[in-house]
Amino acid sequence: MSETLDLARDLIRRRSVTPEDAGCQPLLAERLAPLGFRAEHLRFGEVDNLWLRKGTEGPVFCFAGHTDVVPTGPEANWSHPPFDAVVDDGVLHGRGTADMKGSIAAFVTACERFLTRHPEPRGSIAFLITSDEEGPAQDGTVKVVEHLEQRGEKVDWCLVGEPSSTSEVGDVVKNGRRGSLNGRLVVRGTQGHVAYPHLADNPIHHLAPALDALYRKVWDEGNEFFPPTTFQVSNIHGGTGATNVIPGEVEALVNFRFSTESSADELKKRVHAILDARNLNYSIDWSLSGDPFLTPRGALVEATVAAIRAETGREPDVNTAGGTSDGRFIAPTGAQVIELGPLNATIHKVNEQVRVEHLEELSAIYERILERLFGTDE
Amino acid sequence: MSETLDLARDLIRRRSVTPEDAGCQPLLAERLAPLGFRAEHLRFGEVDNLWLRKGTEGPVFCFAGHTDVVPTGPEANWSHPPFDAVVDDGVLHGRGTADMKGSIAAFVTACERFLTRHPEPRGSIAFLITSDEEGPAQDGTVKVVEHLEQRGEKVDWCLVGEPSSTSEVGDVVKNGRRGSLNGRLVVRGTQGHVAYPHLADNPIHHLAPALDALYRKVWDEGNEFFPPTTFQVSNIHGGTGATNVIPGEVEALVNFRFSTESSADELKKRVHAILDARNLNYSIDWSLSGDPFLTPRGALVEATVAAIRAETGREPDVNTAGGTSDGRFIAPTGAQVIELGPLNATIHKVNEQVRVEHLEELSAIYERILERLFGTDE
Repeated sequence: MSETLDLARDLIRRRSVTPEDAGCQPLLAERLAPLGFRAEHLRFGEVDNLWLRKGTEGPVFCFAGHTDVVPTGPEANWSHPPFDAVVDDGVLHGRGTADMKGSIAAFVTACERFLTRHPEPRGSIAFLITSDEEGPAQDGTVKVVEHLEQRGEKVDWCLVGEPSSTSEVGDVVKNGRRGSLNGRLVVRGTQGHVAYPHLADNPIHHLAPALDALYRKVWDEGNEFFPPTTFQVSNIHGGTGATNVIPGEVEALVNFRFSTESSADELKKRVHAILDARNLNYSIDWSLSGDPFLTPRGALVEATVAAIRAETGREPDVNTAGGTSDGRFIAPTGAQVIELGPLNATIHKVNEQVRVEHLEELSAIYERILERLFGTDE
Repeated sequence: MSETLDLARDLIRRRSVTPEDAGCQPLLAERLAPLGFRAEHLRFGEVDNLWLRKGTEGPVFCFAGHTDVVPTGPEANWSHPPFDAVVDDGVLHGRGTADMKGSIAAFVTACERFLTRHPEPRGSIAFLITSDEEGPAQDGTVKVVEHLEQRGEKVDWCLVGEPSSTSEVGDVVKNGRRGSLNGRLVVRGTQGHVAYPHLADNPIHHLAPALDALYRKVWDEGNEFFPPTTFQVSNIHGGTGATNVIPGEVEALVNFRFSTESSADELKKRVHAILDARNLNYSIDWSLSGDPFLTPRGALVEATVAAIRAETGREPDVNTAGGTSDGRFIAPTGAQVIELGPLNATIHKVNEQVRVEHLEELSAIYERILERLFGTDE
């Protein structure tokens, strides 16, 4: 069975760094057309999106994913070129192998096998594919969901192919996600000559201990479904380039991944309290990427757990850890949303990779999920 | 008395932006030849340098300075064209008026008046003039000093005309400078997704408290002549640009301005000890711009202080604050080095200027210094 690998390699060779799709979506539409999927290409701003649907009745099962990938970082640091999709010793190497072109390939081949045996399932199967998941995520899934809602089209069950697994495929399934809150923190001082520090005020010296205090803070303890809220600094920039000039300001981009134990507004207030207590001259522009959401146990979670158990013998851990995903845009429509994909150990890193047998395993699990949800009355 | 003003204007009208001399040095050589100064034009690389000396015996008193000037910045922002040397309401306007063509003109006229009264002083008077003080400073004073040392020619007393004054001419005299040590600190972690901080290792979170520790450290208390050693971060950069990626490394450019109570090697060792104690994965590239130097109380400092007191009634503050100057190249030869020049409020800025009466005052002080050092036995 090399269908999944072949399609994954074909997708990975397309350099679809956000917001580029680089021809991935046309490839998927063409591949699935013979099975009866009608394609709707939805371009919003710079972003290509694809809605594919086979069937007109409910319930609607949707595979959701993205063709865009994060930048490679220094290509020279990769053991194999990031867009060559090299298979070496049973491992597929390349940007997007795990996040998430491998999952998309597995969606397609699972669907193909399922529909060969059940050509007209009772209900609909759909694909919601964007090229803006790793970027601002403003013209991607959120816009497609709006478009579907405007015409009353509804998704009942949504499986997002984000890499949820930790050590083995299916060991972790996500039934929700933490919220994500971004802040652009600018601390201001007074520019001057490094030889006259008493005439200047170095904003880097103010920011450094403030970041340390924010990092050490315990924001909450999490709960049954959510791990504790985390704080990270993703970017920091200050300085004129000259080694003898104290800069006038410094900027840090910060991010919270937060549980349902904290709200975005509470986190903002607590950050301001910490910075105000230090008498920093600062401003923060906040941007809420998504509130936390949760899909409780029900048909989709049960089908997924049963499929994993049947295919692998594993009992998955169902939790809400990890990054945001486009599930946050789909969940508010009332859909059940679950995330299941390959191992996430190498995503966004140099030498992103996935084991070829894991792709096959994933495709088989996806097929079993379709069987559980649609195949029972055949 | 308009001799000093006339010569200053003549020099300012020559557009000698580093490394250009634009004919300033030939003008000086020609002007001083009738008084018995022998000229040696020393060109190193792209840089014109001039060594003038009257006399063959010691002690050798040397006026040191530079004919090059920093760029004007936007000329439209100047109230008077920067190379027109306009005098308006008692103020001479133009690039180089304060840093340091005004001082050079005052050197010359002070010398002329002194030698008119004392045609053959016991000792020598010299001028060391470069056109590379504001630039890389690699083919200027440092090379002339090497040239003189190679033939065993020695300077005993050196007066650098850098603008040392703050509010009034002679209120501040520099008898040394702090050392300057630069470091490029890179802290490494493990790149990853902000949603999976346990799989990554954020180097910004390691660097922030380390910078705070370095900033809070008391390196020394300074001494009679030096303020305490200071540590500043001039530039900090980390992050991929993406808000959801923890970067793999972060860089900070740091600078020490250090007193004679610390050596560059000691500072390096202490920085490494602080970083090692925090188990940081880091490297530092060090670059020493200059060791500290000091001219303690003695003939030159006493003559200068006495000359200022006699001419202006002021008691100068003798200190070592401020940026580097070419004094750092002359002091290691064993020469006594002092810096005395006009107000530094407008140097390197748009609308650089000097009061005409300040040039006259400066010339008179320089003349009194020559009197004190050479004129006593007449």
